[in-house]
Amino acid sequence: MKYVYYFKEGNKDARDLLGGKGANLAEMANLNLCVPNGFTITTKACHKYYEDNGLSDEIKNEILEKLKGLETLTKKKFNDKSNPLLVSVRSGAPISMPGMMDTILNLGMTEEICEEMAKTNPRMAYDSYRRLIEMYSDVVMGYDTSKFSGYLNEFKKVRGYTSDIDLTIDELKELILKYKEHYLEIGGSYFPDDPYIQLINAIEAVFKSWNNERAITYRKVMGISDLIGTAVNVQEMVYGNKNEKSASGVLFSRNPATGENVLTGEFLLNAQGEDVVAGVRTPEPIEKLKEIMPDVYNGLYETAQKLEAHYGDVQDMEFTIDDGRLYILQTRTSKRTPIANVKFALDFKNEGKIDEKGVIKMVKDSDLEVLLKPTFDENDLKNSKALTTGLPASPGGATGKLVFTSEEAKNSKLEDIILVREETSPEDIDGMLSAKGLLTKTGGLTSHAAIIARTFGVPTITGASEIEIDYNRKTLTIGDNTFNEGDYISIDGTTGNVYAGKLKLVAPNETKIMLNDILSIVKKYEKIQVRANADTKEEARLAMESGAKGIGLVRTEHMFFNEERILHMRKMILASTLKERKDELAILEKYQESDFEELIKEVSPYPVIVRYLDPPLHEFLPKENEIEDFSKESGIDEWVIRNKIKELSEVNPMMGFRGCRLAIKYNEICVMQTKALINAAIKSIKNGLKPNIEIMIPLTNDIREFKYVRAIVEKTITALFKAYNVKIPYKIGTMIETPRAALLSKEISKIADFYSFGTNDLTQLTYGLSRDDAGKFLNSYYDKNIYLSDPFKSVDELGVGALIKFAKSSASRKIEMGVCGEQGGDYNSIKFFTKIGLDYVSCSPNRVASARLSSAKVQIENE
Amino acid sequence: MKYVYYFKEGNKDARDLLGGKGANLAEMANLNLCVPNGFTITTKACHKYYEDNGLSDEIKNEILEKLKGLETLTKKKFNDKSNPLLVSVRSGAPISMPGMMDTILNLGMTEEICEEMAKTNPRMAYDSYRRLIEMYSDVVMGYDTSKFSGYLNEFKKVRGYTSDIDLTIDELKELILKYKEHYLEIGGSYFPDDPYIQLINAIEAVFKSWNNERAITYRKVMGISDLIGTAVNVQEMVYGNKNEKSASGVLFSRNPATGENVLTGEFLLNAQGEDVVAGVRTPEPIEKLKEIMPDVYNGLYETAQKLEAHYGDVQDMEFTIDDGRLYILQTRTSKRTPIANVKFALDFKNEGKIDEKGVIKMVKDSDLEVLLKPTFDENDLKNSKALTTGLPASPGGATGKLVFTSEEAKNSKLEDIILVREETSPEDIDGMLSAKGLLTKTGGLTSHAAIIARTFGVPTITGASEIEIDYNRKTLTIGDNTFNEGDYISIDGTTGNVYAGKLKLVAPNETKIMLNDILSIVKKYEKIQVRANADTKEEARLAMESGAKGIGLVRTEHMFFNEERILHMRKMILASTLKERKDELAILEKYQESDFEELIKEVSPYPVIVRYLDPPLHEFLPKENEIEDFSKESGIDEWVIRNKIKELSEVNPMMGFRGCRLAIKYNEICVMQTKALINAAIKSIKNGLKPNIEIMIPLTNDIREFKYVRAIVEKTITALFKAYNVKIPYKIGTMIETPRAALLSKEISKIADFYSFGTNDLTQLTYGLSRDDAGKFLNSYYDKNIYLSDPFKSVDELGVGALIKFAKSSASRKIEMGVCGEQGGDYNSIKFFTKIGLDYVSCSPNRVASARLSSAKVQIENE
Repeated sequence: MKYVYYFKEGNKDARDLLGGKGANLAEMANLNLCVPNGFTITTKACHKYYEDNGLSDEIKNEILEKLKGLETLTKKKFNDKSNPLLVSVRSGAPISMPGMMDTILNLGMTEEICEEMAKTNPRMAYDSYRRLIEMYSDVVMGYDTSKFSGYLNEFKKVRGYTSDIDLTIDELKELILKYKEHYLEIGGSYFPDDPYIQLINAIEAVFKSWNNERAITYRKVMGISDLIGTAVNVQEMVYGNKNEKSASGVLFSRNPATGENVLTGEFLLNAQGEDVVAGVRTPEPIEKLKEIMPDVYNGLYETAQKLEAHYGDVQDMEFTIDDGRLYILQTRTSKRTPIANVKFALDFKNEGKIDEKGVIKMVKDSDLEVLLKPTFDENDLKNSKALTTGLPASPGGATGKLVFTSEEAKNSKLEDIILVREETSPEDIDGMLSAKGLLTKTGGLTSHAAIIARTFGVPTITGASEIEIDYNRKTLTIGDNTFNEGDYISIDGTTGNVYAGKLKLVAPNETKIMLNDILSIVKKYEKIQVRANADTKEEARLAMESGAKGIGLVRTEHMFFNEERILHMRKMILASTLKERKDELAILEKYQESDFEELIKEVSPYPVIVRYLDPPLHEFLPKENEIEDFSKESGIDEWVIRNKIKELSEVNPMMGFRGCRLAIKYNEICVMQTKALINAAIKSIKNGLKPNIEIMIPLTNDIREFKYVRAIVEKTITALFKAYNVKIPYKIGTMIETPRAALLSKEISKIADFYSFGTNDLTQLTYGLSRDDAGKFLNSYYDKNIYLSDPFKSVDELGVGALIKFAKSSASRKIEMGVCGEQGGDYNSIKFFTKIGLDYVSCSPNRVASARLSSAKVQIENE
Repeated sequence: MKYVYYFKEGNKDARDLLGGKGANLAEMANLNLCVPNGFTITTKACHKYYEDNGLSDEIKNEILEKLKGLETLTKKKFNDKSNPLLVSVRSGAPISMPGMMDTILNLGMTEEICEEMAKTNPRMAYDSYRRLIEMYSDVVMGYDTSKFSGYLNEFKKVRGYTSDIDLTIDELKELILKYKEHYLEIGGSYFPDDPYIQLINAIEAVFKSWNNERAITYRKVMGISDLIGTAVNVQEMVYGNKNEKSASGVLFSRNPATGENVLTGEFLLNAQGEDVVAGVRTPEPIEKLKEIMPDVYNGLYETAQKLEAHYGDVQDMEFTIDDGRLYILQTRTSKRTPIANVKFALDFKNEGKIDEKGVIKMVKDSDLEVLLKPTFDENDLKNSKALTTGLPASPGGATGKLVFTSEEAKNSKLEDIILVREETSPEDIDGMLSAKGLLTKTGGLTSHAAIIARTFGVPTITGASEIEIDYNRKTLTIGDNTFNEGDYISIDGTTGNVYAGKLKLVAPNETKIMLNDILSIVKKYEKIQVRANADTKEEARLAMESGAKGIGLVRTEHMFFNEERILHMRKMILASTLKERKDELAILEKYQESDFEELIKEVSPYPVIVRYLDPPLHEFLPKENEIEDFSKESGIDEWVIRNKIKELSEVNPMMGFRGCRLAIKYNEICVMQTKALINAAIKSIKNGLKPNIEIMIPLTNDIREFKYVRAIVEKTITALFKAYNVKIPYKIGTMIETPRAALLSKEISKIADFYSFGTNDLTQLTYGLSRDDAGKFLNSYYDKNIYLSDPFKSVDELGVGALIKFAKSSASRKIEMGVCGEQGGDYNSIKFFTKIGLDYVSCSPNRVASARLSSAKVQIENE
């Protein structure tokens, strides 16, 4: 068994064995880039380490053997004062892992070597030794940093120094003595003066850090297996702190924030790499290097080009300049903003580096949603510190004055406002629409607020659990900051960050052009059809502009929530006779008819799937504080209202008196909606349109139940067709959102013209998991690795997916089948739905573009 | 096609064609019993009638042809004044159907025939004619009865008559004239003086009445198909109103109330059959006939014996004595009380009429539950009128003083009380246990109150929607009656009837002996094992006495609701540190340990399946009006309590923070329950018992989830075994109550030692139907024939059953599988669970006997 590899022995595809860093170092070494020599101790050694509960002699020997080889390669000697080989030791797991032990520099330094080195370059010698002790104490020994880097900071502060450069040689020497004193004091042993002990301890420390608390937590959160293990890279030191012709820096082959094709990065003269990241001095922009060391700059430019071309993606590199000579210490695929990623992809295509399919593969589905949103100015962001971070529920930046109630949000139409709520209810929709952004304390990525927000494209953060709201005093408190109503805050729904004050927003004009470029490519490859969930003409238009193939879900209840209509809705619910109810329904019918007409106009000849009234009626009734007003307005006694509220209140509304159960008890509601829809369709024909309407019955769980509702609808349609002497094609289908409906598919498919799988409710029922309440315990489930992600985000193939697949495969005939609900816009779900042969997915208008991209991605993968 | 059959042409098995009445008349005619001659117009004719929208000439001709034959048989002539054939026309569907047109007597009477008959028997002549017009007007023409029978009542009242017999001949003649006048007045036509017209109209009226509103409603409620149709019987009249040697009566071959083997019935001298039923005169008991006409009595006795033997069941007969001659007009299987039915079955076996299997077939599962209950005295019942009728949720009679809160119920321990509530919550359990009976306004047969009531054997009526409760005034209003706290009421949980005052209760000693007789037979045939759901030693004892094979479900949460324990439970929930929580859990552990010890003692060596804490924690927190007291008692600030209540409140608690989710967030609860159970088992071993314990994890929906909880439990057990140096066999299994758990059975069965299907929650989730809220719309579903019965009563084979079957058949290995939940005691469900091969069902202790009977029934059917 081989546990250690020279860089030259590996390549970029050996990540599992060598870790990401090791594989890239190997690749670069083989590309003959100027990479300091070294070797990688593999992840296999890590497993063995845990198996043996320590580093075995076998592995130790192999390390020493490779170290000998390294001496040969570098023509230096380990533990040799005249020509010392010093090394860096770095962890490198196959997947990038914050929280693990990262880097120790200058390893191999001893007192003797230091003194010898000091003869020619005292600053470098003492500075390097100081750094070694500091890092070793911290990351290998786990000693309190206040005695080392903290002590140094104090030391400089007392002397008024702003930079390490200000330290005199004597002071550096003094520091080293102090460090050693502290080291002995804390651990009871001397700082090891044996380079071999330093090396073996450092390697073991890396392996140990694989299982430290932060790393474990990170893996749990990210769903990364504990079994991967980490590798360790041992590399010859080069010295950015040698002299004024030396430097350390980081470099991106293109701008990772804007996507511009310009070398981007920064560097520090006479410094080691950690200084750039740690911010002890302010680094210079990379352009400055062009002036100081034009040759080195050119070398960097060429290397960046070469690596980007070689890896086929924008690179993030670390480099060191050692006495005017350039070394590349690391390269990896650059992190980037969504906008930058899209620009990279389009530029790569224009540069002939990738083809259209390459663009589709490179652009992430989550990128596109962001392209439609205003974002915060990069500079403003840089200068602002997030007060807290919640869940990025609906992307985009928003800034405005704080308000705490939906009512206030509605009343501040002329001002930009941010609505802050503990949680939201359906009646907050008006308020949400009036707000620039929404911030809630509770709720997850698929909570009611989040779904509605994404539907309407309102930048939103949910589950910001650290915020404290006092509705009485109208204050928002985050940590030590308290904001009053009317104070400005800014929220970034793309990251989940909350900021104080007013951040500048950048309009998305340029990004819209990019979006269209992407979609014109997507169009050629997408397979499963994408429709949108839309309730208004604005949403429908937005969806069609993004290329939706119709509306997969009109939630008709949303049409009743505005101020004018809710009055009649409530009077309808409170009607004491059938006649009264019908009178109010007649008024609502006119509203709804014109809504439907508008929708058909936007979408025709593509289909409009109208879901009949779904939520429990109590959701429409006034809240306690609205009862008095409503009573005055409607002339209905308060006690009658209260009685009805009590009568309709439910223990488990999600499984209560809703869906087609409403139509069955109150046929007249179903008749009204049918009349409104058919009359709208008839009118649209007169206007030269081709209405394509599908009527969707919600919450079906029984054959006779669907038949009953279908009969009412058909009877109404037949009468209207007869009265107007027309015939319009239509379908009557059902949501499949109860497990029973899926199980009864064989029979239901005989009488339903289409299915729309309601994945939200189907997931709730299949799991027995209330979306609105899951926040109480889901974190425990994530912490304990039980659920790896929100069960509502991607379709659960084992349970919910199995039911959908069963419903599809057991259907008695071929009928249109699609998905509405949030999973309609999710990549993994789209992949599954494509695989089992569904016809379409329907998602919120803002996700249409990304869903289409996912559709194309899935198609390309399947080729 | 033959549409009309002489009685002699049919037999009892031709019910579908001849209807029940026709088939029995045919059977009796063939037994050569003295049945008036006649013929039956078949259900086929009924279908043809609806097809043709009227009676076709073909059928009319066949009727007339059979009428000719009847003239020959009776040696009388239709429409002949000198020797007139009069007939009765009666409906008779294959299934007994109240609400349909029933009977017209004396049909064929004309003015001329009446006058001729009056020459020899004027009273009979005019009385019969009067009756014909009255019935014809009512049932054939649908005229307002106030002008006929109502007019007669007025007529008698004015004259101070108490009986029809008091009417003089002249008055009878006057009545006939008045009737005819009214008849003309209402319908604008004369009363038909043509016997053929009378006959055809009457037959058509029967067919029409098949589709009258009451009949349709009845069929919907009972789940009877509209397609069966009804038959019509035309039968020669015999005259119970001929003279003082004539009579009409009803007779049971044994006593249908008590089950005693004595001829039971009543009769009226000189009356037609309807008088007995209508109660215009008070009938005489049948023993009286023995004195007056001993020969006729003997004839009746012999006929009853003959028919009972022939049909193999107790018969309910109608008879007429015509001038001293006995005629049997009808026989059918007698309705009976549950107690009577059991007695019939046991007596039949003793008389050698049926064997043991016959007993099992004859006794209904619902009978046995009643045998354990006190019932109301028959006489008291006869003299009381039910004020309203709710759902018979838990059988047995109860009488006591009204109270309106659980608190008051608990405080009145020395008195018999009836608790009346709008609905019940888990905290009402203490109150329910203190009450003799429970009456609720809302809730169905499977509502929380109903389930708990059956578990504890508390006679209960739920869903008594007509009652009005005013908690402030402490009044119960039913119609015009208002009761105050402390007033006596009586409720009959077997029938759902509510009575004013204090009805006498009869103890069930005798019936308990009968129950044991039945169970000793059942024991030889039962197959699927029956266990019980029991939380206390009393329940466990009751269950074991009824022959339960262990406890299939201990709901541990019930152990925390009593006054002493709830305090610690609440403090545990409100604990602000882990230590505080553990301190309270340590107290609860001791309680629970002793509970478990008691249960093991009752049940060992049979298994005790302990379900870990299941309900959402907010169910344990104080109600608004208890907060102040609890705050004082516990020393916890009110606002802390309120905050916790708010924090834990849920939108859909059924799918919320409950089940194993509690154990996952608060491992320590799960640890506490494990310690309590294992310590109890260890103690029981020291007491020489053989504990057989199974640990059940509730609400599992995931593989990792179950593994996680299992690991906690096993770790705790291992530590205890080590500490006490013992080993006790145990199982760790799970409820299968989410659809996902059923779908993941292949994997879950690898790591769970047993399954218990929780049919209540599985039904809720599969249907998307909240048991607590379904009352709002289920009636619409029944009315409209969508659900034929409560989805929670019997297992839904298409949906829920399919999931259970899938879970069973896809399991990776053979593990114990059973059902807990109300369906465990339901016959149809037991049949299904036996078919798919489950090992046991578990039901409330009071249903164990009936479940065992069902188990035996199913086994016999499958032979």
